[in-house]
Amino acid sequence: MPRPRSEKARQSVLDAMRAALSSGGFDAVTIEGLADAAGVSKQTIYRWWPSKAAILGEALLEGSVPGADVVVPYTAELAGDLRAWFSAMSTSLSDGEGVAIARALIVVTATDPSLGASLNERLAAPIREWVEGRLALAVSAGQVRADADVGVIADQFVAMASYAALLGRPLSDERVEATVDVLLRGIGHPGMPGS
Amino acid sequence: MPRPRSEKARQSVLDAMRAALSSGGFDAVTIEGLADAAGVSKQTIYRWWPSKAAILGEALLEGSVPGADVVVPYTAELAGDLRAWFSAMSTSLSDGEGVAIARALIVVTATDPSLGASLNERLAAPIREWVEGRLALAVSAGQVRADADVGVIADQFVAMASYAALLGRPLSDERVEATVDVLLRGIGHPGMPGS
Repeated sequence: MPRPRSEKARQSVLDAMRAALSSGGFDAVTIEGLADAAGVSKQTIYRWWPSKAAILGEALLEGSVPGADVVVPYTAELAGDLRAWFSAMSTSLSDGEGVAIARALIVVTATDPSLGASLNERLAAPIREWVEGRLALAVSAGQVRADADVGVIADQFVAMASYAALLGRPLSDERVEATVDVLLRGIGHPGMPGS
Repeated sequence: MPRPRSEKARQSVLDAMRAALSSGGFDAVTIEGLADAAGVSKQTIYRWWPSKAAILGEALLEGSVPGADVVVPYTAELAGDLRAWFSAMSTSLSDGEGVAIARALIVVTATDPSLGASLNERLAAPIREWVEGRLALAVSAGQVRADADVGVIADQFVAMASYAALLGRPLSDERVEATVDVLLRGIGHPGMPGS
């Protein structure tokens, strides 16, 4: 019978994965390096995880996820809220650790599609929830069309943020503003003052 | 002095890369496998290319690129044109070979950012050109706002297509329609009949 996982050792391996990502990127992560950093044997790691992608998956799901932990208060000003949120989210994907984690997630998704799909679903969920919640409020307030497809808008923000992380190019303020402007006008909002 | 590359051998290696991608994905490609399939030595490959990412880059730039070779005639009906084009492009990214190439490009971009950035620039260029050309026509025809930011619209199509390829989920007709509808309304088009 396999020995039960030691919680302390498990956390050390997940911490080692996060640290290794930040310093060299997912491609450079090795099981040997993780074992050394975590103070466990390679055999222990192989016994607990089928692949380094699986370790990354667990680290992502349990740790702070870039973009997902951005909280922006709702104000009465829809365009300003979306700009502040989108800008904060894309910035969190463009600092050192955020880029490393987002890129690793992208590599995992492209190489292990089924793990990637479930990770993406988990990680994109809070982003979708924020956008959908804020837009539902705008619909009730009569600020956007009642039949606005908020799911499409949420997907576009997720896709833009993912593409920016992939290219490692944070979105400029101008691009954030233009994106929010087009999407809001697209659902019947008059657009931003001055734009 | 290094011997000049043999054009025939070079093409064989690029063909071997395309075939290997379709059958097993970029992660499973090895220099040894490419050398066997192309009938050249591993040393020859190492002499000509610094990495398998570089071989992929050359194969992508010279071969048919998924999405980039979609040609859709301009008609008078803007929404219909964009729907037909976006649907054809996302379908070409979701068939077997298209997905394999798009995912490989994504992995290369996430692991070798500077090669990835130049590849993405080259590959996204025809997509941007098509969208910008078609929208410029619509601006002249007074079908959309004169100050529409067509670059933002083009980027959104590219980002959505890239995200769909990453997840390996072709966009449904409904999603294509809703995306085009939101973006067109966003630049002052009245939206699609019946939507």
